Amino acid sequence: MRIISMLALLLTFSLQAQDINRLTDQHIEENGVQIIQDFKALLSIPNVAFDLPNINKNAEYMVAELEKRGVQSKLLRMVGTPPIVYGYYPVKGAKRTIAFYVHYDGQPVDKTNWTNDPWEPTYYNKAIFEGGEPMDFPTSFDQISEDHRIYARSAGDDKAPIVTILSALDMIQANKLKVTSNLVFFFEGQEEAGSRQLQQYLNDNRELVDEIDLWLFCDGPIHQSRRPQLVFGVRGVTGMEITTYGPNRPLHSGHYGNWAPVPGQLLSNLIASMKDEDGNVIIDGFYDDVEPLSDLEQQALANIPLIDESLKAELGINDPEGTESYNERLLLPSLTIKGLSSGNTGKLARNVVPATATAAIGMRLVKGCDPEKQKDLVEAHIRKQGFHIVREDPDQETRMKYPKIAKVTRSDGYPAARTSMDLPIIQEVIASTKVVAGEDLILLPTLGGSLPLYLFTDELQKPAIIVPIANHDNNQHAEDENMRIGNLWYGIKLMGALMTMEK
Amino acid sequence: MRIISMLALLLTFSLQAQDINRLTDQHIEENGVQIIQDFKALLSIPNVAFDLPNINKNAEYMVAELEKRGVQSKLLRMVGTPPIVYGYYPVKGAKRTIAFYVHYDGQPVDKTNWTNDPWEPTYYNKAIFEGGEPMDFPTSFDQISEDHRIYARSAGDDKAPIVTILSALDMIQANKLKVTSNLVFFFEGQEEAGSRQLQQYLNDNRELVDEIDLWLFCDGPIHQSRRPQLVFGVRGVTGMEITTYGPNRPLHSGHYGNWAPVPGQLLSNLIASMKDEDGNVIIDGFYDDVEPLSDLEQQALANIPLIDESLKAELGINDPEGTESYNERLLLPSLTIKGLSSGNTGKLARNVVPATATAAIGMRLVKGCDPEKQKDLVEAHIRKQGFHIVREDPDQETRMKYPKIAKVTRSDGYPAARTSMDLPIIQEVIASTKVVAGEDLILLPTLGGSLPLYLFTDELQKPAIIVPIANHDNNQHAEDENMRIGNLWYGIKLMGALMTMEK
Repeated sequence: MRIISMLALLLTFSLQAQDINRLTDQHIEENGVQIIQDFKALLSIPNVAFDLPNINKNAEYMVAELEKRGVQSKLLRMVGTPPIVYGYYPVKGAKRTIAFYVHYDGQPVDKTNWTNDPWEPTYYNKAIFEGGEPMDFPTSFDQISEDHRIYARSAGDDKAPIVTILSALDMIQANKLKVTSNLVFFFEGQEEAGSRQLQQYLNDNRELVDEIDLWLFCDGPIHQSRRPQLVFGVRGVTGMEITTYGPNRPLHSGHYGNWAPVPGQLLSNLIASMKDEDGNVIIDGFYDDVEPLSDLEQQALANIPLIDESLKAELGINDPEGTESYNERLLLPSLTIKGLSSGNTGKLARNVVPATATAAIGMRLVKGCDPEKQKDLVEAHIRKQGFHIVREDPDQETRMKYPKIAKVTRSDGYPAARTSMDLPIIQEVIASTKVVAGEDLILLPTLGGSLPLYLFTDELQKPAIIVPIANHDNNQHAEDENMRIGNLWYGIKLMGALMTMEK
Repeated sequence: MRIISMLALLLTFSLQAQDINRLTDQHIEENGVQIIQDFKALLSIPNVAFDLPNINKNAEYMVAELEKRGVQSKLLRMVGTPPIVYGYYPVKGAKRTIAFYVHYDGQPVDKTNWTNDPWEPTYYNKAIFEGGEPMDFPTSFDQISEDHRIYARSAGDDKAPIVTILSALDMIQANKLKVTSNLVFFFEGQEEAGSRQLQQYLNDNRELVDEIDLWLFCDGPIHQSRRPQLVFGVRGVTGMEITTYGPNRPLHSGHYGNWAPVPGQLLSNLIASMKDEDGNVIIDGFYDDVEPLSDLEQQALANIPLIDESLKAELGINDPEGTESYNERLLLPSLTIKGLSSGNTGKLARNVVPATATAAIGMRLVKGCDPEKQKDLVEAHIRKQGFHIVREDPDQETRMKYPKIAKVTRSDGYPAARTSMDLPIIQEVIASTKVVAGEDLILLPTLGGSLPLYLFTDELQKPAIIVPIANHDNNQHAEDENMRIGNLWYGIKLMGALMTMEK
């Protein structure tokens, strides 16, 4: 039954496939020079979330571009925050609505590290790290190669999808193709600043978002193997800081060493008790809530190329944590010592028994794990190791009462999100993406990193998946961020395919 | 046999006792105002080891003062270092030579923390921390109380013994008492700067030091219980830094957390493996070389007042390391985590898997432990935990070859020293000190801290003990250093007793 319906889908899309790929190639050939110019114009507007005047310029530019294409557009505003660009493209007879999420803000920059000004887009004949040289922006299509790159802040993360969406609409309209869903465009302006008001924006505009049946997050890079991918989830994130206590002031390590309790020792003992030699967490219940993959997801996982050996060589690692593959490890919650501090090391080291030692612990969560419960489990473990937990530095009375004291400062956080590959609408997206990406499309159950996708999957209760187009080496968040032209073209095809996918 | 000889000694000294105590009291009554003025004059000369012009002024002042009293004096010089003030006071018929070691340099100061200028000695009616007020220096003996204090750098550490030695000589000469040993005065000028040339000075002047039968180190404070003490040893000191390795650069804790090895975890596991829950070191052989105490030393140890409960209350400690008393713990080698660092904690914490984690480990040694062997034992333990030890950051080939890598950077160091209480000359010193200190004199087998006494006990092969006179709350090394007048008087009596002790 499932096989038959999938065959039917493939049949439908093999027709669309020829159209989309052929028509988009033709559109790019005719308009590629202008598309790159439009991209350059958008990239020229500085876009750090806290720079509200420029953020507004970005937003107004996008509203104008959307309206040119018949998209009903407006800015959703909340005082003192970057607005959300909201566009609605109703389609007569469409029975569903799909939303394209993009963020138009970018990471702050330290210009001294950049080869060129991050907001003066520069065209290169190939990647700088491969020896690329700057060249003039192309004036005819035959000057363009797929390996060319545009260097600018947000070239890869995350303005490229905006240009591909606009170009796909142009292509569809020029060829009078049938758009099969109502389309919503939802461009956020503070993702790199933590999306702090995103939940409020969604709550304040429920009438706009409640009709959306599927969220497509156009963000992030394709797979490290350079194969295109769809990503069905993200890990959640939380954490805590733990401080252990020695004497109430640093003591001379001669006069008191071997008698005064050593906070770095107490902390090390505690941290060591949390994992086994393989790097698996041995805190009771830590993995209990992990939601298993479906058969389809297991199968998708098995088809993801293994990058373990290349990662190990690249990162100088002989023995990674755990015994599973990299892909499998991302499907487990993590516990990472992000930082340790006590007294001093190196030239500043002094002969003291320090008063405190602190560990910053990062935790990633997978589908099924609750951030608060996961921290509760860690705290229960800390208590099991004999520590009395406090929330502030202990006073003298507390110090005298308990042999071992740990201050635990819990971080906020949010849960993981994962949309089932088994949903019919997701099967359509997969099939439609394969039309432009080919059969080696990677279906990644989750990213290792975190995004607040739970706001959509858990709060709005809608499927939400990530549809990346940027090259994996786009240097997102860092200096010399860039977008490969071939990936820009792939993005236009993909957006076109998703806008026109048949039910 | 032993009891009889001890009784004989007590009998001899009970005669001397009356003389020394009575004659010194009388001397102080007649000369106390001047003694305090002389002390003030010496304290007024700045004395940081690196300030050679002033250091030389100190040295020349002391040579002049010694020569006034018939001591053959000279400066032992080595270019660019503080000179040693060497004085020789031969005694007709004396069959032995005892040396009084003092250091005339002081710790550097941060004047902003001082109540008064550290080199403008200020007289107080009691300790500042007890609410003391400054007063004029006394002009008659009846203005002086034993609880008065002089505030100045090196008042307690370590110029007071110089004044007490000079005053004791005055008292002896005024009363025509018999000095029973040839006396050597050996005043060092760079103890607070690490005594870096001390060994060289000793080697270069072997003809002067080889005849010395006993070294008395006039330094440090009396016991925290305010009871006078003699100290028979110090712990040695050494240490190492250990760095563990994760990926070759910090990685995103989302993309790689749960797969990339975490250096802070590896380091914690390693540190945790070094001690048991009680804080005892469980590194093979760590305590094997500890030289046991003799019966007499065991007995002395048992007579030291227990300060554990007051220390615990003062320092906010419920559960010290180990199960033995503070006094007993100092007789064991220690292993202390002086510092930990990896990534960042607090506001600077980032979501990374750091590339490295480092621990600064301090080690104290007791009589019997060799600094190099003790570090070898720690390294053997590190290897036993599966680490490959390197001396420089590992290259890619090394990284790929070994699952766990630790860089070990060994510190220099020196061994402990302890002079046996059983030696006849030491028994004389004990008896002689009891004459002025009383029967509750504490005999401390070792300090927790470290001094290079091994240069005397091991290299010169001579007994060497510490003869402290300063009040325990003299704030040595810190701001508002001070000397209690009563302790100054005790010092004069003690020096007189030691110079005249009968064989």
